[in-house]
Amino acid sequence: MLCSEIVHGATVPRLAAVTRRDWITLAVTAVLVGIAALCHFAGANEVATFFAAAVALAALAHLVGSATEQLGSHLGSGSAGVVQSALGNLPELFIALFALSDGLVQVVQFALVGSILANSVLVLGIAFTVGGLRNGTQRFDSSHARLISTLALLAAATMAIPSLANAFHSPASAHADALSDICAGVLLVIFVLTLPTFLRSGDGEEHPAARWSVVTTATVLGLAALGAAFTSDWFVTALTPAIHTLHMSQEFAGLVIVAIAGNAVENVVGVQLAARNKPEFAVSVILNSSLQVALALTPVLVLLSLLFATHLTLVFPTLLALTLVISAILGALVVNDGESQWQEGVVLVGFYVVIAASFWWGT
Amino acid sequence: MLCSEIVHGATVPRLAAVTRRDWITLAVTAVLVGIAALCHFAGANEVATFFAAAVALAALAHLVGSATEQLGSHLGSGSAGVVQSALGNLPELFIALFALSDGLVQVVQFALVGSILANSVLVLGIAFTVGGLRNGTQRFDSSHARLISTLALLAAATMAIPSLANAFHSPASAHADALSDICAGVLLVIFVLTLPTFLRSGDGEEHPAARWSVVTTATVLGLAALGAAFTSDWFVTALTPAIHTLHMSQEFAGLVIVAIAGNAVENVVGVQLAARNKPEFAVSVILNSSLQVALALTPVLVLLSLLFATHLTLVFPTLLALTLVISAILGALVVNDGESQWQEGVVLVGFYVVIAASFWWGT
Amino acid sequence: MLCSEIVHGATVPRLAAVTRRDWITLAVTAVLVGIAALCHFAGANEVATFFAAAVALAALAHLVGSATEQLGSHLGSGSAGVVQSALGNLPELFIALFALSDGLVQVVQFALVGSILANSVLVLGIAFTVGGLRNGTQRFDSSHARLISTLALLAAATMAIPSLANAFHSPASAHADALSDICAGVLLVIFVLTLPTFLRSGDGEEHPAARWSVVTTATVLGLAALGAAFTSDWFVTALTPAIHTLHMSQEFAGLVIVAIAGNAVENVVGVQLAARNKPEFAVSVILNSSLQVALALTPVLVLLSLLFATHLTLVFPTLLALTLVISAILGALVVNDGESQWQEGVVLVGFYVVIAASFWWGT
Repeated sequence: MLCSEIVHGATVPRLAAVTRRDWITLAVTAVLVGIAALCHFAGANEVATFFAAAVALAALAHLVGSATEQLGSHLGSGSAGVVQSALGNLPELFIALFALSDGLVQVVQFALVGSILANSVLVLGIAFTVGGLRNGTQRFDSSHARLISTLALLAAATMAIPSLANAFHSPASAHADALSDICAGVLLVIFVLTLPTFLRSGDGEEHPAARWSVVTTATVLGLAALGAAFTSDWFVTALTPAIHTLHMSQEFAGLVIVAIAGNAVENVVGVQLAARNKPEFAVSVILNSSLQVALALTPVLVLLSLLFATHLTLVFPTLLALTLVISAILGALVVNDGESQWQEGVVLVGFYVVIAASFWWGT
Repeated sequence: MLCSEIVHGATVPRLAAVTRRDWITLAVTAVLVGIAALCHFAGANEVATFFAAAVALAALAHLVGSATEQLGSHLGSGSAGVVQSALGNLPELFIALFALSDGLVQVVQFALVGSILANSVLVLGIAFTVGGLRNGTQRFDSSHARLISTLALLAAATMAIPSLANAFHSPASAHADALSDICAGVLLVIFVLTLPTFLRSGDGEEHPAARWSVVTTATVLGLAALGAAFTSDWFVTALTPAIHTLHMSQEFAGLVIVAIAGNAVENVVGVQLAARNKPEFAVSVILNSSLQVALALTPVLVLLSLLFATHLTLVFPTLLALTLVISAILGALVVNDGESQWQEGVVLVGFYVVIAASFWWGT
Repeated sequence: MLCSEIVHGATVPRLAAVTRRDWITLAVTAVLVGIAALCHFAGANEVATFFAAAVALAALAHLVGSATEQLGSHLGSGSAGVVQSALGNLPELFIALFALSDGLVQVVQFALVGSILANSVLVLGIAFTVGGLRNGTQRFDSSHARLISTLALLAAATMAIPSLANAFHSPASAHADALSDICAGVLLVIFVLTLPTFLRSGDGEEHPAARWSVVTTATVLGLAALGAAFTSDWFVTALTPAIHTLHMSQEFAGLVIVAIAGNAVENVVGVQLAARNKPEFAVSVILNSSLQVALALTPVLVLLSLLFATHLTLVFPTLLALTLVISAILGALVVNDGESQWQEGVVLVGFYVVIAASFWWGT
């Protein structure tokens, strides 16, 4: 169907649908990325670079948001969710690799779990709140949303086992590296086996008519992803000195700042979708992101870290691992009932604030 | 509609509907409260005073039960649930404040978590058992019941974070007071934000025709609340010596005795409603009580305790905090499936018995 | 209806329906049990006896599988599930009693929890994977399946309380024996109270016409159970030396090998049922097995162990108890949504692999 549209020249009226507002968004984003680049290359104050990069990331997130919704019209919510989450995970991969090469293992561990928590607690909470206040009780009772929430829960529980083995002095705690590698291998195998599911078209949901052509959408997405990668790089360079200047613990920086900045793309998209009364797609994007961190990003980093001086294991601080399991269970319970209400959103946000606060103090 | 009823003199036939049985209930309750007062002021044996106060509380609970059902007919199940839970929490607030002023912080901690466990495990179990045996499988598949169960779960999880941070030697454990206060603040903000939801009329469910007028209902409720407050006071005065006489640990007394006595009002009401085949309203009353302990009573006490010599923190013994989280998850799972069967009720009661037994032995 | 069928001689055409394939199954099973007997009584190499007994158990499991499906046609899925699970638990009871008399308390503890994990994680995962790949998304949204999953969860949580009390140095940890016995008593009372539910006919589901008569079915089941009991005995005798030869930890042997071998009967049946697109019955058989281990097998063994030199308590290693609770919650969440997809199955299997790996290393 996509082909026939292009063949029959249907792209021409579509291109005309790139509105003046779209051009303004593109221009503003380019300027913000430019400012971040200037801060970085001109050796500006680290806190300034840090915030400039964060703002540029948010602008890029907004751009990806618009483009992804167009993509949803072309592809169906399932595939769009995967493409979008993959784009959203690219900055996190860059951030984590830079941090690992600097030996900041704990920042990476907190950023990985933080990504999952930020998505399945904070962003889900904001999406429920915004979506509920604007559209009333929202329903998303499809197999697809429930499948993703169940997989995200199971993946999070699997990911937490090495930490629990270590916390309770199980004999395996003397073999944490081996157990982490086995766990990473299992997660990757699951990822490869389940990937085709998510690449097939979504759940046949109705989408509004596409406003941008496939080519325009792909170009915007590609440029935004490239920009996000560069900006992430500048962000992580400024991060370490900025932490010190702002008197923040490494744990909190990883869990909250890096995780939210690294997920800015999906975060904004998920909330936008909920606001536009597409709760199905919103839950899909938000939990897909958690799922991909657990099934792909984390094991890839564990295995890649074998090439670095410091090995990344899945032995997290116990509180972090337990919080991960509890949050994943709460997330699944909240999604499994098939409807969202703004009050659930408010309590999810409150839960996230208390989790974040409990890691405010560093070692 | 309430106004027009009163204006048009519709209260006259209603008052006639205060039956002879209602008068007997009122008289018996007054006598039992009188006996408890006599025991207290005449300096009777502490165990006698303790049991007299407990029985008087149960009679008051029964009275509030009748009045609340009348209220449900006037207000809808949502608001009635809130009013009823608020009345039910008043004795607990008095008990906790008296105990805190005596420095019995641990009794208060166990009583708070015990209230949540008593409601969402024991009373829910009894309600399911009684309701199921009398009425077969009961369904309560409304947004309202599920919303309350989800909020109760999220609130319990939030409340448990400082304990988990402490249990697993997180850096935050050195700042337990500050983390508790932050947590209490977040819970109170959530309470204030979500309060209007519960004050609006329920879910449009059908109620039986009111038998008492609004004025009669309000008067009975007011007197019962006042009586419950006084009786709670006598109860807590007799509690400490009675614990010693009965060879009970402080932990068990707080978790089981104080929690059940303090919640007698909702406990009886919830079970009565299930027996009368109003599972929707029963679940609403029972879990609302847990929710209000977590969102209102607990944070209010934490913040009020700043005025006392001994500060109440949310750092509970680890087993207590873990039991709270697990029970809240079980409660939400049991309610979320939208139906209750008596076998679920029996197992919930068994689970509560084992939890209570595990705190039988004191330090 | 059963009676009238027999009275009217309807058994004759049924007996004719014992096909040639059925006879082959019977003969192969008898031969395999014979080989295991030969290994055992002829004093063959322990690893050989161990594997011969395991294979014979699997063949017996297949036989019970065929017979149980016939039974389902006569009794309805509910009762068939109970009878089948009871038959499946007999070998475990024998294995555990022999191991206890040898003082192998830890093997028994790991085998009990391992049975629950093997059923509600591994076998459920395989059933979902096989059932989903062969039949697409399967639905089992009946009260019965959800009731069993909820009861299994509550029973697992109850069973874990003594371990958690011990892990977090609760005062009760000094009274672990007493708390275990109380817990076992509560579980047995629940079992007795809920037993009639499971003995009544299932949920009125349609079954295919019975191929075997009631008498044939009962005879085959009885012989298979007897064979399973003997084979289990030979299996446990060979187990301890085989563990040493195979360089396996006692924990892993109990959790994985004994648990899977002891549950082979239900394991194969559950997966077969899912493959034949009877997800309702599959979930019922699989979780019933977990439920019976928690409600009957475990407390019976705890109380019987009072007669032995070494007392079996419910104080498991902490990681094992936590894994039990988390797995039970995951199992309930996965079943409560009323549908299974093969991806859920794959992740459940992955989760089991990581749990098993975390107990690979012994003390």
